[in-house]
Amino acid sequence: MSATGLSGVHVALATPLSPDGRSVDHDGLARLVERTLHGGVRAICPVGSTGEGPRLTRAVRHDITATVRSVAGRTVPVIPAPSAPTAAEAISEIGELVQAGADAVLLAPPSYYPMTADEIGEYFHAVAEATAAPIVLYNIPAMTKVSLPAPVVASLAAHENIIGIKDSSRDFEYLQSVLYAVDDADFTVLTGSDTMLLPSMLVGAGGTIAASANVVPQLGRQVYDAVTSGDLDAAASAQRHLFDVVQACRMGTMPAGWKAALAAAGVCSPALVAPARGLDDDRRAALTERLRQLHAI
Amino acid sequence: MSATGLSGVHVALATPLSPDGRSVDHDGLARLVERTLHGGVRAICPVGSTGEGPRLTRAVRHDITATVRSVAGRTVPVIPAPSAPTAAEAISEIGELVQAGADAVLLAPPSYYPMTADEIGEYFHAVAEATAAPIVLYNIPAMTKVSLPAPVVASLAAHENIIGIKDSSRDFEYLQSVLYAVDDADFTVLTGSDTMLLPSMLVGAGGTIAASANVVPQLGRQVYDAVTSGDLDAAASAQRHLFDVVQACRMGTMPAGWKAALAAAGVCSPALVAPARGLDDDRRAALTERLRQLHAI
Amino acid sequence: MSATGLSGVHVALATPLSPDGRSVDHDGLARLVERTLHGGVRAICPVGSTGEGPRLTRAVRHDITATVRSVAGRTVPVIPAPSAPTAAEAISEIGELVQAGADAVLLAPPSYYPMTADEIGEYFHAVAEATAAPIVLYNIPAMTKVSLPAPVVASLAAHENIIGIKDSSRDFEYLQSVLYAVDDADFTVLTGSDTMLLPSMLVGAGGTIAASANVVPQLGRQVYDAVTSGDLDAAASAQRHLFDVVQACRMGTMPAGWKAALAAAGVCSPALVAPARGLDDDRRAALTERLRQLHAI
Amino acid sequence: MSATGLSGVHVALATPLSPDGRSVDHDGLARLVERTLHGGVRAICPVGSTGEGPRLTRAVRHDITATVRSVAGRTVPVIPAPSAPTAAEAISEIGELVQAGADAVLLAPPSYYPMTADEIGEYFHAVAEATAAPIVLYNIPAMTKVSLPAPVVASLAAHENIIGIKDSSRDFEYLQSVLYAVDDADFTVLTGSDTMLLPSMLVGAGGTIAASANVVPQLGRQVYDAVTSGDLDAAASAQRHLFDVVQACRMGTMPAGWKAALAAAGVCSPALVAPARGLDDDRRAALTERLRQLHAI
Repeated sequence: MSATGLSGVHVALATPLSPDGRSVDHDGLARLVERTLHGGVRAICPVGSTGEGPRLTRAVRHDITATVRSVAGRTVPVIPAPSAPTAAEAISEIGELVQAGADAVLLAPPSYYPMTADEIGEYFHAVAEATAAPIVLYNIPAMTKVSLPAPVVASLAAHENIIGIKDSSRDFEYLQSVLYAVDDADFTVLTGSDTMLLPSMLVGAGGTIAASANVVPQLGRQVYDAVTSGDLDAAASAQRHLFDVVQACRMGTMPAGWKAALAAAGVCSPALVAPARGLDDDRRAALTERLRQLHAI
Repeated sequence: MSATGLSGVHVALATPLSPDGRSVDHDGLARLVERTLHGGVRAICPVGSTGEGPRLTRAVRHDITATVRSVAGRTVPVIPAPSAPTAAEAISEIGELVQAGADAVLLAPPSYYPMTADEIGEYFHAVAEATAAPIVLYNIPAMTKVSLPAPVVASLAAHENIIGIKDSSRDFEYLQSVLYAVDDADFTVLTGSDTMLLPSMLVGAGGTIAASANVVPQLGRQVYDAVTSGDLDAAASAQRHLFDVVQACRMGTMPAGWKAALAAAGVCSPALVAPARGLDDDRRAALTERLRQLHAI
Repeated sequence: MSATGLSGVHVALATPLSPDGRSVDHDGLARLVERTLHGGVRAICPVGSTGEGPRLTRAVRHDITATVRSVAGRTVPVIPAPSAPTAAEAISEIGELVQAGADAVLLAPPSYYPMTADEIGEYFHAVAEATAAPIVLYNIPAMTKVSLPAPVVASLAAHENIIGIKDSSRDFEYLQSVLYAVDDADFTVLTGSDTMLLPSMLVGAGGTIAASANVVPQLGRQVYDAVTSGDLDAAASAQRHLFDVVQACRMGTMPAGWKAALAAAGVCSPALVAPARGLDDDRRAALTERLRQLHAI
Repeated sequence: MSATGLSGVHVALATPLSPDGRSVDHDGLARLVERTLHGGVRAICPVGSTGEGPRLTRAVRHDITATVRSVAGRTVPVIPAPSAPTAAEAISEIGELVQAGADAVLLAPPSYYPMTADEIGEYFHAVAEATAAPIVLYNIPAMTKVSLPAPVVASLAAHENIIGIKDSSRDFEYLQSVLYAVDDADFTVLTGSDTMLLPSMLVGAGGTIAASANVVPQLGRQVYDAVTSGDLDAAASAQRHLFDVVQACRMGTMPAGWKAALAAAGVCSPALVAPARGLDDDRRAALTERLRQLHAI
């Protein structure tokens, strides 16, 4: 797939689990994929941070990707996130994910050691050189402790296999610095903060990969479509609605709020992969009430 | 003045000093005021963080305010920032600043102790009750270590003397949370991050109080006017230009970059109030070169 | 006074207030001074962070210093903390404090702007050059956002007016780096973290200026005396006891826990200077219960 | 092995690599093990943070452990660090490491997601229940973003398979809180900050697992032996010497300084596992010069 194909509202897909959290609920997964496609998402991104990929094994990430591919058919790209401590293991897992049906991959830096700018650049360059799969860079310093420097992103954007970036830093100036640094490249910048989708698009972002699209894909689409059609009042109104839903779901260990919302919507269990814990009953009830007020479920 | 009158691009006025940094250059100050008025600013905000107010004495803040008032006449509001460790001293200084010609004041929390939400609310409420001067709240956690919680801001916004907030947190979600919390109030939200003026206005901000307006007031105005007139392409282009100028001037101890730019533009000396130091010659030359590339001086 | 005279356990004196928090309770202050002297402190340090100096006016800091001097007589040094945004105002306040009876002063950097190493050095040097009062440097990055770099401390330690440092960073490696950097100088390093008094003394610290000495001066003295006499088992036991008391009193806005403990001990009211708030009744009761378990009151 | 057997100075073993960094230098590894044994270490801890374990594959961690076991014979315990994103994978890798000769393992929490106290407790409990190998908890928030809460450590200390903790937080109060929380348990607290070995032992720590023991094992031993024999002056002197060596080696990406020191000492190449980079020539030369001044090489 190409950078152009990355535009739109994409789902950072949650991973439905059995109620005890011990196995993937592939039926629930199929329901969730269909729900998000029905809601208008343009790509499906499983086993990232929202999808609890780093809490799963490589084999499970492979199987989830295969199920998503199977359910989605060829209608939309499937962009799973490998989870590897080294370039060699990332390359190896990317090969498996492509076999499972991935069109591209969403790749974060390893999370244990802090990395210098040079090391970050070398890591992504080594992976991009060794695989034919298109790569979307994943900037998520809350997890990896490092932010991909804008000049490094600009340099990587020139690589034919590197087609975009998902920025989950929540740092708007950072997003701008990346957009301004890469502006001539065939490269799409997506925000991971759909709370800021409207402003992000107005400075050049192509869309979002968002956890909210599991629950309220139509809200992200309302923002996206309104911006695209130039109706800024509608965009601002939809953005505020989406902001409120996202703030409500930021409860407990990620993605406990989104899982609870999916459970309230009847999609799957609220369980997380151990040792992560879902919300307790009181918090789930409070969230459900709030989401009903917001017409989100 | 009213909340409505707070809309627009306002200058966080620098304080021109003698070359040795030991005294205020009131002639340079007059030149700077005239320059910013000519550039289209709608209000002048002296002795804030950019104006080195917290490095000056109360008497000097008074004299600067009086000079600004005298030069500006009644054409635009003058909104200085008191700098006081207690509510009692803030109330006292606000009285003096009003005598010197202030139309309103820009008030940050005390900077030494961290404060709870309740303490922040009580501080501003106590000042607002005791003075007739309109108050603009000043959120600048990089200096004060605390961020004014959005619900506290919403509560304070209901006070007739509290007409707005300047948010210098660089946290776009925070700005949104404040805008969404206060939306029915007669209250204007200004960003202190003119790097984000376009996106801030699109979610409801009324403008900015910006250091950049000392040097390139026309750039902030281009963003503001383009957004107001609905020309988003022009707004995005001007925003990028302004972003680059601001990034270039973030050098050394604040506001060393802006002072160096003003020196390069022939307005005043590059000196800061001791013990703060201006840029050394090499960095000043590099900044001047960069600002020329950007047509900023 | 000299660096040698700084050794020992000193009290970071709390400021007793009337129950409504609006005025200083000079009778309570006298009781507190006598209590700490009886408990074995070697110096009294009023109007610092524990003493809420930065929430008070200069005139009130002066009056408190005068009362402390009067009650203490010439038995121990009195070392108040000025609270000034500039070197000029610090110099002026130091003059007043000496008039009020100060033997030395405890001086932190200004708290609003972050400062570079050079600026920190210049600030303290300027004050030391302009006053005859001995100066104890005060490193408290939780309040001032900057840490005095060890090489800067070493350079300042060579100044005849600069006799020591109180380090409240809670960073033991920092304390070591300061001790190792200044080791040939006539300069005393005190920890502000009496939780670490034993280990601090074992790497060369001369003692502590501690909030705990308001409530349990005997515990700090037990640690100090045991280390001095080489009884490390007794020192470790007393250190643990003191650690538990300090952890218990870290509640609410500083120094709410210490004020509540003094109220429980019958010394003064639990009030803080507005807008800071004392503990609510439930937390005060819980703290009192805990302090009784610890035989601290 | 038991908690008692954990006392002493242990080496956080570096991993010697071929000059291009692409493969493990097992000959160099054998030299390094012998060198540290000769220097007096009581246990060898390979493939931890200093050993670049998280940059290696599981198979390589296994092979390094086997080599260490083979070279060390049965003279000292071998305590490698697994590196797994889930409890299931940790359990599986621990089984392999025991096969390779491990006597116990050093186990950190997974590094990607922040974890709550309950989740941390559940993670370690699940692993301890499922394996017979003794476990040393590893607290290293600079890498994992979480600190093991002292009450959680105390609870885990009651488990028969959990024999100790290595604390690399550099937070002395944290170390104390752990020591005080577990004091009745059969559990040994080791510091990962040998800069603080003397003070740590004086509040109850049993020793250290230290990177410095690759280069200067005798210095850690001097501190340990002097404290054990009650010679505090000698301990303080050795501690300062060790502090200076450690500070000197904190250069570049961890463990670049230690690798450079080993190269200067003729033990192995200075290479790190890609994408981590060793020091450039200038910095290596400066470090070598400094270490010679310190008589460390």
